[in-house]
Amino acid sequence: MRALWLEHGQLTLRDDLPSPAPPPGECRVRVTLAGVCATDLALARGYMGFAGVPGHEFTGVALDGPLAGRRVVGEINAGCGACAACAGGDARHCPRRTVLGILGRPGAFAEELALPAGNLLAVPDGVSDTAAVFAEPLAAALHVTERLPALRDVPVLVAGDGRLGLLCAHALALAGARVTVAGRHPDRATLLPAGASHATGLLEEDGSSFELREPCWPVAVEATGDPVTLPRLLRHVSPRGTVVVKTTCEQVEPLDLSSVVVHEHVLVGSRCGRLAPALEVLARGAVPVERLAQATYGLDRATEALQHAGQPGALKVLIEI
Amino acid sequence: MRALWLEHGQLTLRDDLPSPAPPPGECRVRVTLAGVCATDLALARGYMGFAGVPGHEFTGVALDGPLAGRRVVGEINAGCGACAACAGGDARHCPRRTVLGILGRPGAFAEELALPAGNLLAVPDGVSDTAAVFAEPLAAALHVTERLPALRDVPVLVAGDGRLGLLCAHALALAGARVTVAGRHPDRATLLPAGASHATGLLEEDGSSFELREPCWPVAVEATGDPVTLPRLLRHVSPRGTVVVKTTCEQVEPLDLSSVVVHEHVLVGSRCGRLAPALEVLARGAVPVERLAQATYGLDRATEALQHAGQPGALKVLIEI
Repeated sequence: MRALWLEHGQLTLRDDLPSPAPPPGECRVRVTLAGVCATDLALARGYMGFAGVPGHEFTGVALDGPLAGRRVVGEINAGCGACAACAGGDARHCPRRTVLGILGRPGAFAEELALPAGNLLAVPDGVSDTAAVFAEPLAAALHVTERLPALRDVPVLVAGDGRLGLLCAHALALAGARVTVAGRHPDRATLLPAGASHATGLLEEDGSSFELREPCWPVAVEATGDPVTLPRLLRHVSPRGTVVVKTTCEQVEPLDLSSVVVHEHVLVGSRCGRLAPALEVLARGAVPVERLAQATYGLDRATEALQHAGQPGALKVLIEI
Repeated sequence: MRALWLEHGQLTLRDDLPSPAPPPGECRVRVTLAGVCATDLALARGYMGFAGVPGHEFTGVALDGPLAGRRVVGEINAGCGACAACAGGDARHCPRRTVLGILGRPGAFAEELALPAGNLLAVPDGVSDTAAVFAEPLAAALHVTERLPALRDVPVLVAGDGRLGLLCAHALALAGARVTVAGRHPDRATLLPAGASHATGLLEEDGSSFELREPCWPVAVEATGDPVTLPRLLRHVSPRGTVVVKTTCEQVEPLDLSSVVVHEHVLVGSRCGRLAPALEVLARGAVPVERLAQATYGLDRATEALQHAGQPGALKVLIEI
């Protein structure tokens, strides 16, 4: 089959890859549309030392298993099935997990992929393929709200007005938060949830994180994809305030832990969400995700798609397969 | 008066300093005994850019005000009295606070100091001067437990078997936690709370924080004073586990935020506690703090006292004034 292949930082389109021949309990999916995530770009720069087919945001048609013939999306973490995490029904922290297109499992920038049958969810009829591709990143954004206490009427600052920041802004607004998005693209104001505001220039300044800036936010979300942002963001977080950290990438940056201690800040890591609630949100049209899709490339132009997604300010880039 | 003076990284004993002439509402205290904290050593290396008299752990005799003639200890944060934090009765996060011997206020390595009257607390009769000097660091250790959810029967790993780590171990044990202390000094096992255990070698290894080690702890406390420890400690923290961060110093170290995201770790900054509950703990003899006092120097040998406190493995060093 054809697929995008990543090895030693090189992306190549290959047509000599075998179709998945999954073990019992796993299903094959014919991928129809995939989305490019900042993590894919980080993998290409060396994050996780991944080699293989990247891509973890997708919709497709199940080729076998209980949902054969149905449009599906898929949970990207596949657990061992035996550990305490898996026994608790949550493979996201299984220590032996594979992760679609990220860790030990070929991904979605391919004609076909395989996932455990239990990872697949049928896409509701009213949800377009384009919207369905957002199920995974929207789930991650909704998960941010699960990592925080009640958000009703709480002012929340989202760092980043890119595709992830905007999804987080919508997820937070659905939870009742009063959202401000800090970013470099004032035109993004039209993509914010109702009632949210946009701020430029907040995160540009370097300097000591000991001196907090006014106004401060009790809750913030770091969704820029750039690890240099966190120290800048912390200057805008109230004493004893919380920052949810979303950025994963290959860069490791210095962090002044003393300022975290002095201001008693709380840093909360947040990774993958659950696709079921995301599909529900998509089914009721509560987040206009299709407006975040900026361009669609064929699989033959997948490397271009990733280049596009890596441009400053790029929104969601899709790959049609 | 005589005092230890810090300026441009140089510590000198001076006898030409004026006694404090505090504004209305503040009281003078004749310092009798002071303790050396890792923060004092960090200040001497440049942390906070502090110049003046360091020292914030003390007991003394109030020279005026409502507690005149009584043995006292003092809350080290002095608020503006007007902001929201101060109105809420908690000057610890007043943005215009001064902090005894740390920020904008001369400290305790001196014959006299001044603090707002409301910051002073009488030392109960049964509490020795030596024990009373521990009120401030014990309060900081007890505050760690306030920054965490219920700890009864929760396994907690404390990184650091120095003076702060041991106080944290005792505070956590009082809250019902099952404490393991990781450090380099197996002989410290005798200074642990009943039921706690000591582990060596856990925090020596560098390496990727992506691969968690078994066993993992759901809660940990970083109390080594060395910011290189945190990434090592994170490898021993369960997915979605919490690390309380206590170390403040002048060093800024790289932190792989991706591993915080991937494991959904929570980092909780914790600074100063409240002295009243610490005095209560001392009054009922619940933490054998006097056993943590390792040496006592006169004020004339205060620079030696700080050198001693900076030696690897030093316990609490006191300065008699």
